[in-house]
Amino acid sequence: MRKINDKTGGKLRIIPLGGLEQVGMNITAFEYADSIVVVDCGLAFPEDEMLGIDLCIPDTTYLRDNIDKVKGFVITHGHEDHIGALPYVLKDINVPIYATKLTMGLINRKLEEYELLGSVKEKIVKAGQSINLGLFRIEFIKTNHSIADAVALAIYSPAGIVVHTGDFKVDYTPVFGDAIDLQRFGEIGKKGVLALMCDSTNAERQGFTKSERTIGGIFDTLFREHPGNRIIVATFASNVDRVQQIINTACKYDRKVVLEGRSMVNVIETAQELGFIKVPENTLIESEEMRNYTDEKMVIITTGSQGEEMAALSRMAQDLHRKIMIKPRDVIILSSNPIPGNEKAVSNVINKLEMKGAKVIFQDVHVSGHACAEEIKLIYSLVKPRYAIPIHGEYRHRNAQAQIAEDLGYDHDHILMLHSGDVLEIDSKGAEIKERVSVGRVFVDGLGVGDVGNIVLRDRQHLAEDGIVVIVLTMEKGTGQILAGPDIISRGFVYVRESDALLEDSTEVLEEALDNLSEKRIYDWGRIKSNLKDVLSDYLWKKTKRRPMILPIIMEV
Amino acid sequence: MRKINDKTGGKLRIIPLGGLEQVGMNITAFEYADSIVVVDCGLAFPEDEMLGIDLCIPDTTYLRDNIDKVKGFVITHGHEDHIGALPYVLKDINVPIYATKLTMGLINRKLEEYELLGSVKEKIVKAGQSINLGLFRIEFIKTNHSIADAVALAIYSPAGIVVHTGDFKVDYTPVFGDAIDLQRFGEIGKKGVLALMCDSTNAERQGFTKSERTIGGIFDTLFREHPGNRIIVATFASNVDRVQQIINTACKYDRKVVLEGRSMVNVIETAQELGFIKVPENTLIESEEMRNYTDEKMVIITTGSQGEEMAALSRMAQDLHRKIMIKPRDVIILSSNPIPGNEKAVSNVINKLEMKGAKVIFQDVHVSGHACAEEIKLIYSLVKPRYAIPIHGEYRHRNAQAQIAEDLGYDHDHILMLHSGDVLEIDSKGAEIKERVSVGRVFVDGLGVGDVGNIVLRDRQHLAEDGIVVIVLTMEKGTGQILAGPDIISRGFVYVRESDALLEDSTEVLEEALDNLSEKRIYDWGRIKSNLKDVLSDYLWKKTKRRPMILPIIMEV
Repeated sequence: MRKINDKTGGKLRIIPLGGLEQVGMNITAFEYADSIVVVDCGLAFPEDEMLGIDLCIPDTTYLRDNIDKVKGFVITHGHEDHIGALPYVLKDINVPIYATKLTMGLINRKLEEYELLGSVKEKIVKAGQSINLGLFRIEFIKTNHSIADAVALAIYSPAGIVVHTGDFKVDYTPVFGDAIDLQRFGEIGKKGVLALMCDSTNAERQGFTKSERTIGGIFDTLFREHPGNRIIVATFASNVDRVQQIINTACKYDRKVVLEGRSMVNVIETAQELGFIKVPENTLIESEEMRNYTDEKMVIITTGSQGEEMAALSRMAQDLHRKIMIKPRDVIILSSNPIPGNEKAVSNVINKLEMKGAKVIFQDVHVSGHACAEEIKLIYSLVKPRYAIPIHGEYRHRNAQAQIAEDLGYDHDHILMLHSGDVLEIDSKGAEIKERVSVGRVFVDGLGVGDVGNIVLRDRQHLAEDGIVVIVLTMEKGTGQILAGPDIISRGFVYVRESDALLEDSTEVLEEALDNLSEKRIYDWGRIKSNLKDVLSDYLWKKTKRRPMILPIIMEV
Repeated sequence: MRKINDKTGGKLRIIPLGGLEQVGMNITAFEYADSIVVVDCGLAFPEDEMLGIDLCIPDTTYLRDNIDKVKGFVITHGHEDHIGALPYVLKDINVPIYATKLTMGLINRKLEEYELLGSVKEKIVKAGQSINLGLFRIEFIKTNHSIADAVALAIYSPAGIVVHTGDFKVDYTPVFGDAIDLQRFGEIGKKGVLALMCDSTNAERQGFTKSERTIGGIFDTLFREHPGNRIIVATFASNVDRVQQIINTACKYDRKVVLEGRSMVNVIETAQELGFIKVPENTLIESEEMRNYTDEKMVIITTGSQGEEMAALSRMAQDLHRKIMIKPRDVIILSSNPIPGNEKAVSNVINKLEMKGAKVIFQDVHVSGHACAEEIKLIYSLVKPRYAIPIHGEYRHRNAQAQIAEDLGYDHDHILMLHSGDVLEIDSKGAEIKERVSVGRVFVDGLGVGDVGNIVLRDRQHLAEDGIVVIVLTMEKGTGQILAGPDIISRGFVYVRESDALLEDSTEVLEEALDNLSEKRIYDWGRIKSNLKDVLSDYLWKKTKRRPMILPIIMEV
């Protein structure tokens, strides 16, 4: 182990490459002299205005430009916002991945899908272990979260120790494995920690997040209260401990379990293989076998708790599921809270399920995986960092953590609110944002990575708002005489069958404009196009108060 | 007053023309023999998938088809989801409007904007009064809600009495005017009520909704705690009592008040004119006068509490407001909860305001205007209707009210879950859905009412998802020889500058397809177009896994 060594005069550079302006896309580079270590490599789901985009990944130009320094990816846990960009980023930056067993299992599922398995070096680590990566040593510390095998990191650099919590909560009575290793946080804190980068997601919430184990008791009550009904539980596929508790309750009440939804089946398969979930024999059945069991002997554990349109629960709610039909006496438990932005989708699914006569239970069957204010105070009090760097969460959440740090006595100079792309240079003598590197969201749409940018998105937004009107005409080369058209074709603008008059009048307006242009002997295509566009745009605005995209096309013969 | 008279053998027909499949668009027809009375006439805001739509109004074909019977609109209160469709519907169905003073004031603002003022017969009524409309008598009963002057209705028909609560809560200590007239609900209940149509919005919530007055105490605390800061309060423009309390607190702490946002200025102006709000002299100032006062002497009351993009608060948050710049020490109070679907927009505004250093307070500075479970039980216990007809709210909320009715002892046959368009025929002998009338959402987009339908929306969704690719070519008449093209123009599909190769290859694919067609002597435009479309679509899917809209255009010379 390297000791904190200020004599080098070097500084540690902390460079968040994503994750601070949005939820998701967590990725942070730690740089010291010739070494860079990257913590996490997540994706972000698209915002509403990013029409047609499947997902967003971070711009990793900085890593590409410094590829020789990059020693590896260190991953805190297996959620998409921490591992989801790996298959894309590894194509350019193929460096070893370090993660715990379940996390690596989930990464490998992903690499397999992208046909990258075997082409990337991997090392599985355990909480409590350390690894050396260039001038860094990274220690993995056991934490609790809504996915098993999550870790915090102690990042030892010659300039000092940084503790990075990953996503975490304090669960004294976890369902699987140990509680968060608070002793080790305290021990490292005693050594003197330069900076704490702490999860802010729940910083606005007072008190403590409840133990995952409390949900087991709730399932028990719900199962006991509904002995005669089929029970369907929707939850996050990655919450293996939650699924474990549902399975335990199913066994207790002598019910068989069906897993539904691709990610549910995949994650639980991986968790089972790696020993993170224990399923008694003869408990899991295939959906084809359901017909052999009566409703009161069945539990279906499914994806779709966020109202995702293509997930199993939504398909059941819309009668689009091939195997499972919702019945009037079904009891459906949503063991989740809507992630901000999904409220309406979840509500729509609840409406549809209730319309089919099912009973939907959605209150108080979930606990968060993130630390509330008191847990954050606990970690600060154990680690006692010189600098506070709130991470993970929207600005408001990080700001709430900053407020907590202030309440704990930190002054403004020791609370660092970073932006993605900031290069923070830090050592025991001070901390300063020295420069910025290029960062941003790269859009993934189908097979395209980065070929849809802001111009294409702006066009999609314009098309979405008012549709498109295409003007075509054919001109004779040389003379500029119009041989055909102008014709107008529209899509997404008005219902054409009932708007004959409007479209005919528009054609007249264009013919008039063309006559004017020809009188003025204007034959320049660019000018003709822009004139037709303006004239039609004004006319349609006057008539409809809409601004469709107008696309003039001139063909020359 | 007509007595309940079953001897006529007639039945009352209750026909909800909107409002039961979505929040908003509340409108219900009550029909008996030759008389129709319409309760409310609201709009609905578009769902996310209704791209480019400004608002939705109900399809009122049934009223148009029975125009001779329609005696008038009776309006319960002045919210958009109860009055917003009037300017559109009145064009076809110009019958008198009956409403309380503030409600009529807000309707008139609307009619003025649509240049309909004076062309519609209006009668202002007071809570406690009754009016005769054909074979109906309508009694207006004082209630409480998040807008002043709200009423419930007792609808007396020869087939029995229906009590329609409108939107309501029970506020024993309202800020302005009287508490809900519970005595009268009881008195009417004693007469024997056929059906209760009761607000379901908060039926899922246990307990009682708090009094509006409790918010006054919270403002007092917040103002006292921030003596040195400018205070900005965002709330619903129509919540006149809320604004009154903010003004009262401002006066107490010797602050001037600026109103910001068009609807805030308009509604408060109307409320002031009609005596629903009392503003001490020299309290309100224009935004231009703000420079004459220091921050600690100012309160700004603004629209935008729902994160609406164009509202004043959002514009302030984005530095787009012409007069008000957010400053680091500003205290911004969101006196509202996000309406489902607006959570993310509200969160974005909070993030932006906090990034400017403002302190944003958004927890527990709001009470709802809708009755919770215990209030609903209270109304049922006073009215004791024979039939329960839950209204106002999504299916899940109406279903929760149905559950409440069941808990109160109602059997399934006496709880009627209607759909918009159902014609419920009801009298003391029974209730039955006899037929359905045509209902639906009519989309308003710019000046167009109903010219955007599902086909146009589907096109917009397609365009939004993957953009458009236009194929143009010019053919010689008769010979079918291609004189120009095929050319490809795309918008919203790929970034053209970086996709030369893809577009060139696409052109080649099309040329090949045209050669094939010409070899097969296929000159039919329809077949050529559909072939080009299929060929290009397959090619682009293979290359990009995207499905842009493909629009082939053939010009003939």
